[in-house]
Amino acid sequence: MQNFVFHNPTKIIFGRDTIASIGPETKAWGTRCLLVYGGGSIKKNGIYDKVTASLQEAGVAIIEHGGVQSNPLLSHVREGIDRVRHNEVDVVVAVGGGSVLDSAKAICAGAAAAHDVWKFFSGKKSVKAALPLTTVLTLAASGSEMNSGMVITRDETREKFGFGSRHLYPKTSILDPETTYTVPKNYTAYGAVDAIAHVLEYYMTTEDPATPVQDRLMEGLILNAMDSCERCLADPRDYNARADLMWTATLALNGLTGAGLGRVGFPMHMIEHSLSALYNVAHGAGLSVVIPGWLRWHSAANPDRITHLGSRIFRFDAQHNEPTSSQTIRKLENWFARVKSPIRLSELNIPDEHIPAISDNAVNLARFWRLDQYTKDTIEEILSLCR
Amino acid sequence: MQNFVFHNPTKIIFGRDTIASIGPETKAWGTRCLLVYGGGSIKKNGIYDKVTASLQEAGVAIIEHGGVQSNPLLSHVREGIDRVRHNEVDVVVAVGGGSVLDSAKAICAGAAAAHDVWKFFSGKKSVKAALPLTTVLTLAASGSEMNSGMVITRDETREKFGFGSRHLYPKTSILDPETTYTVPKNYTAYGAVDAIAHVLEYYMTTEDPATPVQDRLMEGLILNAMDSCERCLADPRDYNARADLMWTATLALNGLTGAGLGRVGFPMHMIEHSLSALYNVAHGAGLSVVIPGWLRWHSAANPDRITHLGSRIFRFDAQHNEPTSSQTIRKLENWFARVKSPIRLSELNIPDEHIPAISDNAVNLARFWRLDQYTKDTIEEILSLCR
Repeated sequence: MQNFVFHNPTKIIFGRDTIASIGPETKAWGTRCLLVYGGGSIKKNGIYDKVTASLQEAGVAIIEHGGVQSNPLLSHVREGIDRVRHNEVDVVVAVGGGSVLDSAKAICAGAAAAHDVWKFFSGKKSVKAALPLTTVLTLAASGSEMNSGMVITRDETREKFGFGSRHLYPKTSILDPETTYTVPKNYTAYGAVDAIAHVLEYYMTTEDPATPVQDRLMEGLILNAMDSCERCLADPRDYNARADLMWTATLALNGLTGAGLGRVGFPMHMIEHSLSALYNVAHGAGLSVVIPGWLRWHSAANPDRITHLGSRIFRFDAQHNEPTSSQTIRKLENWFARVKSPIRLSELNIPDEHIPAISDNAVNLARFWRLDQYTKDTIEEILSLCR
Repeated sequence: MQNFVFHNPTKIIFGRDTIASIGPETKAWGTRCLLVYGGGSIKKNGIYDKVTASLQEAGVAIIEHGGVQSNPLLSHVREGIDRVRHNEVDVVVAVGGGSVLDSAKAICAGAAAAHDVWKFFSGKKSVKAALPLTTVLTLAASGSEMNSGMVITRDETREKFGFGSRHLYPKTSILDPETTYTVPKNYTAYGAVDAIAHVLEYYMTTEDPATPVQDRLMEGLILNAMDSCERCLADPRDYNARADLMWTATLALNGLTGAGLGRVGFPMHMIEHSLSALYNVAHGAGLSVVIPGWLRWHSAANPDRITHLGSRIFRFDAQHNEPTSSQTIRKLENWFARVKSPIRLSELNIPDEHIPAISDNAVNLARFWRLDQYTKDTIEEILSLCR
């Protein structure tokens, strides 16, 4: 096990009828909030009304900043920062999924800086302070509700970059599984894929596989993501299924799985970011295409971790033979297909001849994340296994 | 899944050569510390020198308060509180295992109150504030390093009572697995038993067994406590084994396992506390006696959770028949015996005729913890299964 620091100060309020806590939890940090949300689905399903009523009752004035898109854009973040400054906002409230929460984090960091917010993403500046953030989560997927990371796409260059800072943990995140009842089936599956991908990145790229405590935790999270996703798809209003998936996705990327693993990379996310940035693919849909291809590429030199995972999470034949890495990858891929998440670039309508251009885009992030082994040729090779 | 709030603000610094962080981590909270420790083993193994050097280098003045016993005493806590007041202490530093950390927490709470500290334990007062606490852990067992609980024994009445408050999370806990190299084999095993017991209390007494995420986490922790303990006993200086056991014990009682389970009881601890209080038995040694007896008693009406646990953590016959609850209990009991933790009251030199007196003591804590189904007769019945 490698040395680590674990310090996750986010307060989680989890369960039914918890949205009414957003007012008092926000009031602890100020009296004027920027309310960040997405395309307006929260106005249809009643969540917006609950949030604004609670904020108003607590005496928190609301400055609106709706319209966050999936694969959220830098330009919209910059508008949010301007709004914070012009309205003397004390605290940011994010209501939505990972895109909304990440946009809110970028606004929190950018509003406290004298320079443009993209300098954090390009690595030219580090976060020294940030506005406080409270959140109401409406999608089980990104884990942003209990971590310090964020991902934003720069409109002009189609760069989808991410980074983290200890200043960006939400102060409080409210997770009411009932808010996810209306998430469509495809996005429910994409959320589960995202949670699985987060765990797999750590599991596969650890520099120290002697971490049995973390292994069991990660294997359990993958099993639960798969199981709870299937139950959500069978009955979208199954409270326990929605709750299991929501808490699983949070635990998948709150720092616990990675504690003790040493340096890890996020190569599958790195490649998927280019799919999202160039084709505006849903993040989870891109991941279920990249994961099997990356695993096939990885297994050529490193089959053992994949085999180990398979022996822990899948049942194979009755003779208890150890599975091969290719059997494990096929089982995982079959599961993605079963929940109707795409597994081939062609399903995303991305033609093979675009692979060089995607690799060109991805290699920029590889350099920024210091994933030096991922040259343009290597990324092309991996993408060719995603066809 | 039941509603829950999870908010664990403790910063964990984990790994080799991390003790030197205690100075700066403590300096963040003040310039005069009370240094709480036990019988002086930390002076023999060099930990005391490392801690005091780091504190002095950071400019933190040290007021000594050594001599904490296992099953720590209220009288010694009261002396610590006096020392805090007479020396204008800002922050408490605990260096040791659970007894030392719990004593330090009681001092932190008592020093910030105008009344006697036992009023917290007897339920007459609640904690409104506490001095900040930093810790250096030297035993993998209690989980006190990352939770808000504590247990103290009142000398005059032999009551071993415990409670928690959100003010009592340590600010920072430093966990260097190398500090546990010199823990004797019996206490290494008792620590693993304690971690297993913490998980079992939640696992068995949950009011909502529909918590598959938490189940996998708990099953993984039990498996890892057993596996890493065996590796520590085989080679006490196996770094990874010590690290695995240490982090497992921390995760076993930091709030994660219980999040979503609703109200749980700690009946096995409740009964064990009387063994410790009356006979000064090592906590883990008492637990390995109580656990199999309590499970046998519990399985008469509730075999299913025990069977479920068995199917998850033990391998039974090749035909994959579901294990019975009694097979599961026997496997667990055999494991306690294998690591030489006692499994019968007679091994603790407690004669059968003392059972009524032990029950008399235990029923007080049962009332305080509102475990109303545990009458004196019931506790006698359970203890009779521990013979």
